[in-house]
Amino acid sequence: MNEIRIIEAGGVVSARGFSADAARGGIKTNGDDVALIVAEQSATAAAVFTRNAFKAAPVLVCADHAATGRARAIVTNAGNANCCTGAQGLAAARRTCELVAAKIGCRAADVLVCSTGVIGHQLPMEKVEAAIGSLELQAGEAINETIARAIMTTDTRPKFCAAQTTIDGRTVTVGGTVKGVGMIGPDMGPLHATLLCFLTTDADVPQSLLQSELEQAVEKSFNSVTVDGDTSTNDSCILLASGASEARITENNMPVFRALLETVCVRLAREVAADGEGATKLVTVAVENAATEADAKHVAMTVANSPLVKTAIFGQDPNWGRIAAAVGRSGVTVNPKVVAIRLNNVEVFHHGEPTSDVLATAEAAMTGPELTISIDMGSGAASWTAWTCDFSYDYVKINAEYHT
Amino acid sequence: MNEIRIIEAGGVVSARGFSADAARGGIKTNGDDVALIVAEQSATAAAVFTRNAFKAAPVLVCADHAATGRARAIVTNAGNANCCTGAQGLAAARRTCELVAAKIGCRAADVLVCSTGVIGHQLPMEKVEAAIGSLELQAGEAINETIARAIMTTDTRPKFCAAQTTIDGRTVTVGGTVKGVGMIGPDMGPLHATLLCFLTTDADVPQSLLQSELEQAVEKSFNSVTVDGDTSTNDSCILLASGASEARITENNMPVFRALLETVCVRLAREVAADGEGATKLVTVAVENAATEADAKHVAMTVANSPLVKTAIFGQDPNWGRIAAAVGRSGVTVNPKVVAIRLNNVEVFHHGEPTSDVLATAEAAMTGPELTISIDMGSGAASWTAWTCDFSYDYVKINAEYHT
Repeated sequence: MNEIRIIEAGGVVSARGFSADAARGGIKTNGDDVALIVAEQSATAAAVFTRNAFKAAPVLVCADHAATGRARAIVTNAGNANCCTGAQGLAAARRTCELVAAKIGCRAADVLVCSTGVIGHQLPMEKVEAAIGSLELQAGEAINETIARAIMTTDTRPKFCAAQTTIDGRTVTVGGTVKGVGMIGPDMGPLHATLLCFLTTDADVPQSLLQSELEQAVEKSFNSVTVDGDTSTNDSCILLASGASEARITENNMPVFRALLETVCVRLAREVAADGEGATKLVTVAVENAATEADAKHVAMTVANSPLVKTAIFGQDPNWGRIAAAVGRSGVTVNPKVVAIRLNNVEVFHHGEPTSDVLATAEAAMTGPELTISIDMGSGAASWTAWTCDFSYDYVKINAEYHT
Repeated sequence: MNEIRIIEAGGVVSARGFSADAARGGIKTNGDDVALIVAEQSATAAAVFTRNAFKAAPVLVCADHAATGRARAIVTNAGNANCCTGAQGLAAARRTCELVAAKIGCRAADVLVCSTGVIGHQLPMEKVEAAIGSLELQAGEAINETIARAIMTTDTRPKFCAAQTTIDGRTVTVGGTVKGVGMIGPDMGPLHATLLCFLTTDADVPQSLLQSELEQAVEKSFNSVTVDGDTSTNDSCILLASGASEARITENNMPVFRALLETVCVRLAREVAADGEGATKLVTVAVENAATEADAKHVAMTVANSPLVKTAIFGQDPNWGRIAAAVGRSGVTVNPKVVAIRLNNVEVFHHGEPTSDVLATAEAAMTGPELTISIDMGSGAASWTAWTCDFSYDYVKINAEYHT
C-alpha cells in the first residue's frame, strides 16, 4: 500500500537535494521578487511551456536550456514578464542565467529562467543582479513559503505543498510552488507554457519518463484550470528530480510516482483556481459519462470559461440554463435528453427538463466557498475535471485598474 | 451607381408589403412583449438558427416551418425563452403559431416563431394568447420602434434600421430589428442559431439565393459580434422577401443587394455590440493581412472574447500586451516579429517590440465611446472585422443579480 501523505508546510525544498532563497530586487511593488531554487547536484529536468505564439524571452531561453534534460537551478523574477522585449530581452534572460551560474558554479545552460509580470517593459537588470547577489541558499522547510511569496504577482496568498509516499521501501517526496492568477487558461505542451510552477522530487527518474509524466500531470491539473481563458505568454512548469531518495522509477512502480505527482499538481491547481483574480468561490466542473476524454475535457473547459456561468455563481444563482447552454455550444455531440446537471449534488436538470421544486435547495447549496458542477453526459464512460472560480466585481476592478 | 441610403427611423416595416404590431402580455416585467410581423402575401423566407445543441422549442418549430422557404408571419415573445421545457414547450410554440394563423388567415406552418428570455420556465400561454388577440397590424414607419422595443430583454435601447438602393431602376429596401445583449457569441448556421433579428425586404429574391445571402451577411455581422462568447439556445435570424418592389435579384445585380443587406446587418450588429451588457464602449477588432479569412476571423474573435482585453478597455488602459497574448493563443500561425497593433490608429506594437513613447497618446485615444483595435498579421491579404464591448462592473452586476 503506497499511501500518499501530505506534508504540512511542505514545498519546493521538501524533497532531498534542494535548497533555495529569495530576495527583493525592487521589480514588483513590495516583497521579495527574485527566487532561486538550486539542486545540490545536476538534476534531471522536465519542462512544459506556453503554446502562445508570443513567447517571452525567458521562455525561449529556458526551453533551450531545458532541452538538455538536465539542470542545476531555476531562477525567476516577478513584476516584469520580459515579454515583447526583443533582442534586449533575450540578452537579459541569458544574463540572468549567467549571474546564477557564476554564483553557484555551473554553466549558464544549467540554469532555467522564468519571469512573470507586466508585458513590454525591459527587465531592470541592475535590480535582478543586486537581488541574485544577496541570495543565501537554505534547505529548511521554512524557505518554502518565502519562495512561494517571491513568485506572486496579483496572487493574494502563497501556494505551495508537498506529499510523500513509499516506493520500493524508500520515502519519495514531490513538492512544489505555483503562482496564478490572471491570464490563466494554460495550454502548455512539450515546447510551447503567467502560470509558473516549480516542482522538485528526490525520486530517480529517467528523463524521458520524467517529461512524459510531467506532461500528463500538467494536462490533468494546470491545463484544466481556467480563470479567464487567456493563455499567458510566460506559462512555465518545471520539474527537477535529484534522485537523492535512491528510489529508481521504472515502468513497474511508475503508477505510484504518477499518483504522487498528480496529487501535488492537482492541489496546486485548485489553489490557483481558488485564488483566481477576484474569486469568492472555488468551482469544480466534473464531467462524467462522456463519449471520450477529449469530449469530457472540452465540455468541462467550456463551462468553466463561460462568463455567464461564472457571474451566476458569484450571484449564488442556480442558473442551470446557462450551464446547459454552455454544454450545448461546446461543439461536442450532445443529446439534450440524457444530460443531467447537479449543483453540489442537487440535481437541477435531467431528461431535457428542469427537475421540479429543487431551486431553493440548489440555491442553499451554493452559498459555501466551494461549488461542484457535475454534468452527466449520458453518452459513454469518460470523465474529466476542470477548476475555475466565479467572476466578481473584483475581477473587473483588478484588471481594469491594472495599468500598462 | 447604386448608392446606399440609410432611412432615418427605418425598420422592419420600411420595405413594402409588411405590417406589424406589438402588445403587452405581461411575460416580461414591463412594456410590450409579444410582436407580430406580417407579410401581406406569402413571402420568400430564409432563416438561420443557433448551433447550440440545447435548442429552444420555438427554434425547433421555427426551423421546421422555415424549411418550406415561404412564410406569412413572424411572431415573437420576450421574457421567456421556452427552452428546456420538453413536450409542453413544443406544444406552446406550435399553439402560438396556430393563434397567429387563425388571426391573419394562413396555415400554422406559414408562421415563424421565436422566444427570448429566461430558460427553463413554461411559456404562459394565456398571456401569449391575450396579447396576440389584441394586436392591430400597422404599416407606418412609426411601428418600427414599437417592434424593436417589444423584443428587448436586458437591451437598454431599441435597435432598428433600414436602407435603400436602386436596382434596375427600382427602389429596393432592406430593414430590420435586432435584440442582444447577453449570451452573445452567435454561431448561426443553416439549420442550427438570444440574438433575435428580423429582416424584411421588398426585393424579389429566389429562395436559395435569399438563404445563401442571409448566411453570408450573418457571418460578416452577427456571427462576428461577441459580448461574452456564450452562444444562446434561441438565436434566430429571419429574412422575409415580399417582392413588392418588383426588382428581381439575379446573379448579375446580386452584388448590389448583397451590399444593401450587409449594410443593414452590420449596422444592427454594431448596435448589439455597443449595447452589450454593461458596455461603456463599442470595440471594433479589425484584423488585416492575415494568411486566410478563417485565420483573420479566428484572431479577431479571440481578441474580442478576451476578458483581459475587455477589462483593460473598460479601464482605458492601452494594454497591447494582452492583445498580443490573445493573438498568440488564437491557435493561428503567428510570426510575432511582423505583427503590428494599433489602438485608434496609434501604433503601439510592431516588429516584436513596443513602439517607443506612444503610451500617453494611446491612452488619450482610448477615452472616447469607440475603440478600434487594428491587428496587422503581416502574413497575407485576408481581413475580418469583429465587434465587441468592454467588460465592466455592470456586466457582472447584470449577470450576477439576474435570478433564475
